[in-house]
Amino acid sequence: MSPPDSTDAATHSPPQVDSFVTHADRAKTPVGVAVVGCGYWGPNLLRNFQNCDQTRVVAACDADPGRLERVGVLCPQAETTTRFEDVLAGDDIQAVAIATPVGTHARLARQALEAGKHVLVEKPLADSVADAQDLIQAAEQHQRVLMVDHTFLFSEPVRHIKALIDSGELGEIYYFDSVRINLGLIQNDVNVLWDLAPHDLSIVDYLLGRPPRSVSAIGTCHTGCGMEDVAYLNLDFGNELIATFHVNWLSPVKIRHMIIGGSKKSLVYNHLDPVEPIKIYDRGVSVTDSAEARRGLLISYRTGDVWSPHIEQGEPLAAVVRHFAHCIRTGETPLSDGRAGLRIAQVLEASERSIKAQGGRITL
Amino acid sequence: MSPPDSTDAATHSPPQVDSFVTHADRAKTPVGVAVVGCGYWGPNLLRNFQNCDQTRVVAACDADPGRLERVGVLCPQAETTTRFEDVLAGDDIQAVAIATPVGTHARLARQALEAGKHVLVEKPLADSVADAQDLIQAAEQHQRVLMVDHTFLFSEPVRHIKALIDSGELGEIYYFDSVRINLGLIQNDVNVLWDLAPHDLSIVDYLLGRPPRSVSAIGTCHTGCGMEDVAYLNLDFGNELIATFHVNWLSPVKIRHMIIGGSKKSLVYNHLDPVEPIKIYDRGVSVTDSAEARRGLLISYRTGDVWSPHIEQGEPLAAVVRHFAHCIRTGETPLSDGRAGLRIAQVLEASERSIKAQGGRITL
Amino acid sequence: MSPPDSTDAATHSPPQVDSFVTHADRAKTPVGVAVVGCGYWGPNLLRNFQNCDQTRVVAACDADPGRLERVGVLCPQAETTTRFEDVLAGDDIQAVAIATPVGTHARLARQALEAGKHVLVEKPLADSVADAQDLIQAAEQHQRVLMVDHTFLFSEPVRHIKALIDSGELGEIYYFDSVRINLGLIQNDVNVLWDLAPHDLSIVDYLLGRPPRSVSAIGTCHTGCGMEDVAYLNLDFGNELIATFHVNWLSPVKIRHMIIGGSKKSLVYNHLDPVEPIKIYDRGVSVTDSAEARRGLLISYRTGDVWSPHIEQGEPLAAVVRHFAHCIRTGETPLSDGRAGLRIAQVLEASERSIKAQGGRITL
Amino acid sequence: MSPPDSTDAATHSPPQVDSFVTHADRAKTPVGVAVVGCGYWGPNLLRNFQNCDQTRVVAACDADPGRLERVGVLCPQAETTTRFEDVLAGDDIQAVAIATPVGTHARLARQALEAGKHVLVEKPLADSVADAQDLIQAAEQHQRVLMVDHTFLFSEPVRHIKALIDSGELGEIYYFDSVRINLGLIQNDVNVLWDLAPHDLSIVDYLLGRPPRSVSAIGTCHTGCGMEDVAYLNLDFGNELIATFHVNWLSPVKIRHMIIGGSKKSLVYNHLDPVEPIKIYDRGVSVTDSAEARRGLLISYRTGDVWSPHIEQGEPLAAVVRHFAHCIRTGETPLSDGRAGLRIAQVLEASERSIKAQGGRITL
Repeated sequence: MSPPDSTDAATHSPPQVDSFVTHADRAKTPVGVAVVGCGYWGPNLLRNFQNCDQTRVVAACDADPGRLERVGVLCPQAETTTRFEDVLAGDDIQAVAIATPVGTHARLARQALEAGKHVLVEKPLADSVADAQDLIQAAEQHQRVLMVDHTFLFSEPVRHIKALIDSGELGEIYYFDSVRINLGLIQNDVNVLWDLAPHDLSIVDYLLGRPPRSVSAIGTCHTGCGMEDVAYLNLDFGNELIATFHVNWLSPVKIRHMIIGGSKKSLVYNHLDPVEPIKIYDRGVSVTDSAEARRGLLISYRTGDVWSPHIEQGEPLAAVVRHFAHCIRTGETPLSDGRAGLRIAQVLEASERSIKAQGGRITL
Repeated sequence: MSPPDSTDAATHSPPQVDSFVTHADRAKTPVGVAVVGCGYWGPNLLRNFQNCDQTRVVAACDADPGRLERVGVLCPQAETTTRFEDVLAGDDIQAVAIATPVGTHARLARQALEAGKHVLVEKPLADSVADAQDLIQAAEQHQRVLMVDHTFLFSEPVRHIKALIDSGELGEIYYFDSVRINLGLIQNDVNVLWDLAPHDLSIVDYLLGRPPRSVSAIGTCHTGCGMEDVAYLNLDFGNELIATFHVNWLSPVKIRHMIIGGSKKSLVYNHLDPVEPIKIYDRGVSVTDSAEARRGLLISYRTGDVWSPHIEQGEPLAAVVRHFAHCIRTGETPLSDGRAGLRIAQVLEASERSIKAQGGRITL
Repeated sequence: MSPPDSTDAATHSPPQVDSFVTHADRAKTPVGVAVVGCGYWGPNLLRNFQNCDQTRVVAACDADPGRLERVGVLCPQAETTTRFEDVLAGDDIQAVAIATPVGTHARLARQALEAGKHVLVEKPLADSVADAQDLIQAAEQHQRVLMVDHTFLFSEPVRHIKALIDSGELGEIYYFDSVRINLGLIQNDVNVLWDLAPHDLSIVDYLLGRPPRSVSAIGTCHTGCGMEDVAYLNLDFGNELIATFHVNWLSPVKIRHMIIGGSKKSLVYNHLDPVEPIKIYDRGVSVTDSAEARRGLLISYRTGDVWSPHIEQGEPLAAVVRHFAHCIRTGETPLSDGRAGLRIAQVLEASERSIKAQGGRITL
Repeated sequence: MSPPDSTDAATHSPPQVDSFVTHADRAKTPVGVAVVGCGYWGPNLLRNFQNCDQTRVVAACDADPGRLERVGVLCPQAETTTRFEDVLAGDDIQAVAIATPVGTHARLARQALEAGKHVLVEKPLADSVADAQDLIQAAEQHQRVLMVDHTFLFSEPVRHIKALIDSGELGEIYYFDSVRINLGLIQNDVNVLWDLAPHDLSIVDYLLGRPPRSVSAIGTCHTGCGMEDVAYLNLDFGNELIATFHVNWLSPVKIRHMIIGGSKKSLVYNHLDPVEPIKIYDRGVSVTDSAEARRGLLISYRTGDVWSPHIEQGEPLAAVVRHFAHCIRTGETPLSDGRAGLRIAQVLEASERSIKAQGGRITL
C-alpha cells in the first residue's frame, strides 16, 4: 500500500553531479579552451564552456567564416579563426574541444595533444581502432587529458540507473534493448551505427563495466550513398546477457527507449519523457529451481508496482565540461577517457565487419 | 490545410471483411465443427464458431475434463469428449479446429485430414518444415481444406495496411521493424520465436507477397528451460529490404509496434492503440539522384502531416471462422493456407539454425 | 477486439473482489434473477449473473422481442418475455435487475419491490429525489434489498484509492477534478449529467463519506433535443474542498481522468490506462505556517517520485452481482444502497436548478 | 535539458512567422529597447530582443542587482540599472518591455508611455479594468504603441487553428474546453486565474473575434495566502457556445489541453505534444433536422479519420518582438493591443466578482 520507503538509499539518494568538481577547483583560474568545429554540436560546447566557472572560451575555430560570426553572440570575448594552426599556437589555450566531422577527429586531436593541449573529442573518439589507440598513446606521451564526450554518462537518468544496477535492485541483468531512431541528420562520412550507437555503447559500457565478447550487426542503405541508414547491433557479454540496439535515420517517429531486463526487476528508460524518464517495474518471471520442475513449466509471474523516481533535470553537457576542467586540474582520469572511446571504436569496427559478413558474429 | 481527400479510394474505402462470405454461403446448413484443445485459445474459437451463422459447434475435445466443463457455458449444445478418436469418428463433424500445444499440431491435423475432416490449425501450423509439407500433401490427397489461423491477416488494421502498400501510397518499402514483447506466457514446448514471431511473419508474408531470401536470428534463454525467451529475427528480402522482429517473454512492458518505412511515406501500426492503430507519416528523406550529389550529401528531409485513418473495430477471429466455412463450401484456397503455414515454418526452422550459428545468416 | 496473443495470460489475473462474498454464501442455492431491459447494459448484467455461482438467470424481459432473441445465446436456460408482469409473477424470481431507460427506473423498481422482489437498479436510481425517496421507503416497507449499480465502487482502482485516502497517504484532500468525456451515447430521456455524472458522484461520495454542501452547474445543448450534451458540475464540501466534473457527449476524444489533490500527495486515476490506472505523485506545495511568511510568499515545491501500485484487473460488475446476492442472503445493507442513490439524485436535481439559474449555486 | 543528439536537426526548422515583418522593416535601424523586470520571463524577452535584427537591447532594469549581473551574459552591450527613472530618461530607448509583477504593470507602463516610450507589457496588461482603460488612453494621447504579450497568438499551432476555424473546416463552434494545470509557480500578487487564464482568454478572444456575454467562476485557496490556486472559469458567448477553463497551481501533472468542439469536426490542441500539437477529428453527431425526429432520438454518430497537420516549431516570443518592432515602425495596431488586454481584464475582473458570488453569473 505504500511507496518504496525513503531508507532505500541507493535509489533515493540525490544525484551527485557536483562530485565532478571539488572545492579546490573553484579557487583557480579558469582553463582556457578553444572549440574547434562550430556546426551542429559546437555551439552547445561553446555555451557550456562559457557558462562554466572553471573554463573560459578563448577561441573558436571553423573552416566556415559564417559559423564563426554566430560565435560572437555566444562568446563575445572569444577570438575566431578559420585556421587550426592558430589554435595550436595559442598560448592561453590549455584545452581544445573537437566537434568536427568524425573522419577528422583523430588527426586534429593528435595535433592538439602534440601541441600540449588537453583534448575533449566528440563521440566517437575516432573512426578506427588504430586511430583511437594512437590517440591514447599520444595523450600518455604528452601527459595530457584525453576525454571523449560520452554525454549520457553525465546525465541524471543514466547515473541513476547505474546506482540502481550497482545496488542490486534489478538483480542479475538479462538483457539491454535500446531503440534510438528518428528521421535523421544523415552524415556523409559515417553510417548510422557510428553516428548513433556510441550513445548506447557508452551507456552499456558504463553500466556493466565490462566489454562484450562478440558483436553481430545488420545494416542496409537506402539513400544510395553507401552509408547504412538502418542498422541493428547485438553484443554478447556471455552468460546469456545480450545487448541489442536498433539505430535508424529513416524512422518517421523519434524513439529513445531502453529496456533493461533483470532477474528481480526491470527498467525502462525513455529519454523523451521529461516527467518519468525512468520506470522501474517490479515484474518478472520466477522459475522453480529444479530441472524436473522446469520441464513441467513451473514458471510463475510477478506483476507488481511501477515506480518512477524523481530525476533532476539538468544539462549533461554542463557536467561534461566541468569534469573535463576538473581532470585537467587534478590529473584524474576522465570517466570517459580514451580507453572508453577505444572500446566503443572496437565494437563499431567489428560491427562493420559483421555487416559485411551478413550478420556473422565477430569475436572481440 | 485539408486532410487527404475522399477520392483517395485505396485508403478511405471501408474494409471489406464480408468479402470472405458470399451470398450463397448464407443459404446453406452450417458446417459442423469440433474444437480440439480448450485451454487458452480454444474458448475463443468456440465462441466465434458459436456466433457464426455459417458454422455450428458439434463437439469440443480436451484431455482435461475440467476445461470441458467450462465449454458447456459457451456451447451448451456441444458434446464434449476427452478422446480425439470421438472427434475423428463424428459423422456430423465436417471440420476440426486444432488449438493444442504446438508439438501436437501436425499429428492431430494429419489424423483429422485422413478422417476426411477440413482442418483449421492454430499458428504455427507445425513445429517443423517436414511436418508442414506433410500436412499440405495430406490435405491435397484427401481434398480437404487446410487453413492456418494467421489471425492478423483477418484484422482490419492489417488489411488496411495491405491496401495502402498495394496502392503505392508508401512508395518502395525500405524496412519492417516490429516489437512484440511482454511479460509472457512462457511455453514449454516452443521458444519465443515459434510462439510470437508467426504473427509478424504472417503479416509481412501477406503484405509483401514474397518470401525472404535469408534469415538471421539471435536468442537467449534465462529460465534454464532451454527455450529462448528473448530473440531477434532478421529477414533479408534482397534489394536492401529487411524485416526485423524483436520478440520477448521477459519484457516489463507490453509493446506491439510495427514500423513500415517507405520511400514516400512511412507507417506505424500500434496494435495496442484502439483509437489510432495506424498512423501514416508524410515524412522521409529525398536523395538528389546523382552519384556526385550524393557524395556531397544532397539529402533533404520532408516533415509533413500525420494521418490516422478510421479503422473499424471487430474481432478478427470472427472473420477467420467465416473464411474457413466459406472455403469449405466453395473449395476456395484459404488466404492463410498450408503453404502460408509452411513458409512461416521455413523461416522459423532457419532461425533455429541461425541461433545455433550465433546469428550466422541462413539462406532459404 | 484485438486478436489476443498467447502471451496475454499474465495480466488476466482473476478479479480480487471476493471480499464481497463470505464462505457461507457458497453453500446455498443460487438466487433466481430476472434482468429487465436487454439493450446496452442488460447483456452485461445477464452475463455476470450467469457466471456468478451465487445467482442464476431465470428470466429476461424487454419490450423488444429482437433483443430477447440475443439473450438466448448468453443464457439459454432463461425464459424471455416482453411483459414485465410475467417477471413480477415469477415464483422462482427472487431478484430483479433493472436496466431500462432512466425515466422508467422508479416505476419498475417500485412494482418489483411491491411484488416482493429484491431490486438492483442501474444508475441513476431514479430521475428525481422524490422517486428515490419513495423507493427507499418501499424497500424498507417490504423488507427487500434495494441496491444501485454504482459499478465503480466495486472496481479495484477505486477501492485502492479509498484505502489510500483513508490511510492518510494523501493528507488533507484539496480537490477532485474529473473529466469523463467521449462521443455519444446520447440519451433521449436524460441529459449528460444524469447519464455520466452518477459515476463521478458515486465515486466521490464513497471516497469522502459525506455529502456536498452546495452545487453549481453549467450545461449547453447542441442537438436541439433540449438535453444538455456538454456540462460542468461543481460540488462544494466546505473548507475549500471542491469537486468539479466535466461530462460531455460531444468530445472527439474519450477521456476518463480524475485528479485528487492532497496536502501530502496527489493522485491521478486514469481509468483508460490498463497498465497504470493509478499514479501517486509525491509532489505538492508547502506553505510556511505564519501569516507574515505567507505574505512574503514562503511557498516551496516538492517534486518527488511517482508510484503506480499494481492493480488487479477484473470486471467490477462481477463484484456488483456477488455483493447483491450476498446482501439478499445476509440482509446486509448494500455498499450502494438506496440512500447512496438518493444522495446522487439530490445533487443531480440541484444541478438542473443551477443550470436554469445560469450556474447559480444551490445549497443542498 | 536533454543531451541533444546529432540527429535532431531535421525537426529544428526555423519559425515561419515572418509574415509579421515586411521587407521595409529590414532596412532600418534597430529599435532601442529596455527590458524592465529580469526575473522569470524577462530573460526570455532579453534573449529574443537580442536575437531580433529589428531591435537592440539598450538597457535592462531590475530592483535586484543579482539578476542584473546575469543579464550581462545574455546582452553584454546592455546597460543595467536598478532605477526605472534611468530607463525613462534614456534617449536611445524607444521602447520598454515590462515583465515585472502584475500589480506594477499599470504604473510602470503609464510612466513609460508618458515618457514617450512604446510599451510591451507582459500578460495580463493590468490587474484592473480601470487601469487597462487608463493605459489605452495614455497610449492614444502620447501616440505610442501599446502591446500586450499574448504570446500564444504568435504561436504556430494557434495561428493554424485560427485558419482552420475561419475556413469553416470545423463548422459551427460548439465549445472550448481548456485545461492548463501544473505544480506552481504560485504568484503572491495575483490568483491562478489572473496568472494562467490570460493565455486561454487571449486564445479564445483571437479565435472567435468577439467577447463573451457573461462569466461564471469558481475558485479555492489552499495555501492560506488568500489567492485562489484552483479555479474554473466559464464564458458564455450566447447561442449555446461556451468556453470553460480549468487553471490550477496544485496539480501533480502538467496538462495543456484544449478541445474545440465543432458541428463538422473537432480539434484537440495539446501544447505539450511537440510532434502532433493539433489533431483534427472527423467525428461528430448528426441530428436529423426535425423536431419529431429529435424526440425519437434520430441522432447518428460519425467516426472518421484523425489528421495531424505538420506544424513548424519556433519560438513564439521571437514573433512577438518582431511584431512589436514592426508596429513601432509602421504605426500599425498590434494584434494584441491595449484593447485586447482590456477585454481579458474585463473577464478576469468579472471572474473575481463571480467567485465572491459563489459562481453566480456576471454579465459583461
